[in-house]
Amino acid sequence: MSLNKEFLTLALDVMGGDKGPLITIPSAVMAINHLPNLHLILCGDENIITTELARLNISEQTLAHHKQLSIFSTSEVVEMDEKPAFALRTKKNSSMRKALDLVNDGKAQACVSAGNTGALLSMAHFVLKTLPGVERPALISSLPTHDDDKHVFMLDLGANVFCDSHVLYQFGVMGSVMAKQVDGINNPRIALLNMGEEAIKGSDHIKQAALELSENKDINYIGFIEGGDIFSNKADVIVCDGFVGNVALKTCEGVARLVYKKSNVLIKTNILAKMLTFLIKPSLKKSFKSMNPDQYNGASLIGLRGIVVKSHGNANSSAFFSAIMEAVKEVERQVPEKIKRSLEQGLSPQ
Amino acid sequence: MSLNKEFLTLALDVMGGDKGPLITIPSAVMAINHLPNLHLILCGDENIITTELARLNISEQTLAHHKQLSIFSTSEVVEMDEKPAFALRTKKNSSMRKALDLVNDGKAQACVSAGNTGALLSMAHFVLKTLPGVERPALISSLPTHDDDKHVFMLDLGANVFCDSHVLYQFGVMGSVMAKQVDGINNPRIALLNMGEEAIKGSDHIKQAALELSENKDINYIGFIEGGDIFSNKADVIVCDGFVGNVALKTCEGVARLVYKKSNVLIKTNILAKMLTFLIKPSLKKSFKSMNPDQYNGASLIGLRGIVVKSHGNANSSAFFSAIMEAVKEVERQVPEKIKRSLEQGLSPQ
Repeated sequence: MSLNKEFLTLALDVMGGDKGPLITIPSAVMAINHLPNLHLILCGDENIITTELARLNISEQTLAHHKQLSIFSTSEVVEMDEKPAFALRTKKNSSMRKALDLVNDGKAQACVSAGNTGALLSMAHFVLKTLPGVERPALISSLPTHDDDKHVFMLDLGANVFCDSHVLYQFGVMGSVMAKQVDGINNPRIALLNMGEEAIKGSDHIKQAALELSENKDINYIGFIEGGDIFSNKADVIVCDGFVGNVALKTCEGVARLVYKKSNVLIKTNILAKMLTFLIKPSLKKSFKSMNPDQYNGASLIGLRGIVVKSHGNANSSAFFSAIMEAVKEVERQVPEKIKRSLEQGLSPQ
Repeated sequence: MSLNKEFLTLALDVMGGDKGPLITIPSAVMAINHLPNLHLILCGDENIITTELARLNISEQTLAHHKQLSIFSTSEVVEMDEKPAFALRTKKNSSMRKALDLVNDGKAQACVSAGNTGALLSMAHFVLKTLPGVERPALISSLPTHDDDKHVFMLDLGANVFCDSHVLYQFGVMGSVMAKQVDGINNPRIALLNMGEEAIKGSDHIKQAALELSENKDINYIGFIEGGDIFSNKADVIVCDGFVGNVALKTCEGVARLVYKKSNVLIKTNILAKMLTFLIKPSLKKSFKSMNPDQYNGASLIGLRGIVVKSHGNANSSAFFSAIMEAVKEVERQVPEKIKRSLEQGLSPQ
């Protein structure tokens, strides 16, 4: 197997995620139908994959000559609750590991997985290595804002527990590249997440990161931002360490679930609410469309020599499809190459 | 002025908050009407206070013999955007400082302020000092959960940027006292906020704090909790450092504002949605009653030798009233004394 230059090739860990192939295979088929020049290598249990494809009317015979789909048969699966170090050490023939190996061997241009986040982070870091000059990779994702047409990138969302000032600085540069390349934003506004907007607040390493970012002329550093302003479209990229980012992101999901539950109780107990919710469903959908979690699925692990997109474990087909499209975009825009170049420029003599 | 034993006496910084006396004075009057044994010392500009009281039909003559209200005239105000260190050094005659001094001098049993949070933390720490054995004070507040009848205490919400393992341990003990005394919960469940629930995750100081908490037999330590579970009623007390707590709390407020804004756009642009909201208003109110921010107003600064309750700067009268009631509860339950005792027990030979 070698990389076909006419096609954009991705390796999918089809076994990952809460429902594995039941979700990933239909998404893969959606994706190749959507993009005629997309080639997907489905890494996983061959029997399961062929059964799932058959259900979608793609027979083994068709598959043998399929230009857009191929199977890379693997014998192991990284479980969702497996310890990352254990998975890294023992699951060398897993669908996750093989999908990453394909990227490293130049046989695929990116890897997409909905599997165990910790294991994916460890394996991707081990297999693909960081770009020259990058100290730590980061998990980045986009979130909705008050402005329907805009979203905000946030990193690190959990790849690193603690980040020193220079790592935070590098995240700022990497986030700036993502906002420029993936979202087409000119001169993206970069902010550091802090306890307050005043320059005197926060830890020493955050203040030092602020200094480093403001000294890079290619970076539009706008200062500190508070948790309450993540969604207010004041910044295009928000930088924080992985612990804080992970807590903030999961707290958002927790609040959303709380509001959803309270609304649901209301709709279930009030017949009027039920009737009218049904009637205004299209408007309701439109109003909250920009907050639809499916389109925000696909956090990218950046700072590595290859492209890795992590889908939510409980993603549905439409959400996993979004993660595949995210990977396509990053391949087309050559994100790793541009991160490398930006960091080299920032690190040139000042 | 000396403490009247028949009354429960609080010192109010009536100048603090975005609208100062316009909010704090009506709340004070609501509070004394609600509790006949409550005495409030109104610290602030005498002219403004008497004018506001007159508007509420309390004349200067009435005030002179009032059993529940007195004025402590002050000449300075800590501005909402003032640097804490500057306020601490220069605003010794401010309403905030004098309210704290009254607690320190034994003339009031607690202080309530809606003023500049950073300045209040610095001044309270400086004036009241920490309890014996307490390394750092913490800002604690309660938040709603999925279960309408239950809420969860979270600390630290921003008094300290970084907390080492022993400080986090102490916060666990202090939070346990708050849940027991203020909420009447037997054997409250204490959790540490972390990036994941697995014991291998998180920083070394969080793992060490987990160990210290699990070794204290008086503490019902239940393990790590993720940001997404803050509201799921899995724990009664959630412990984290001030940076993480502050970001998480403000992120919640940001998500709530985002949802509110999107709903409002929907209601404004859809006549059916407008009707729906109007018709089901009582049910809507009932469903979200447990999430009403007014009742969650009043974060307490604990670990000090006196009781200090911080109201949101933009609190309305009903919310500032809640903050006063929170202070009353803590006085009645002798929270500082019980924190002191719990920490002494935990520190006794094991």
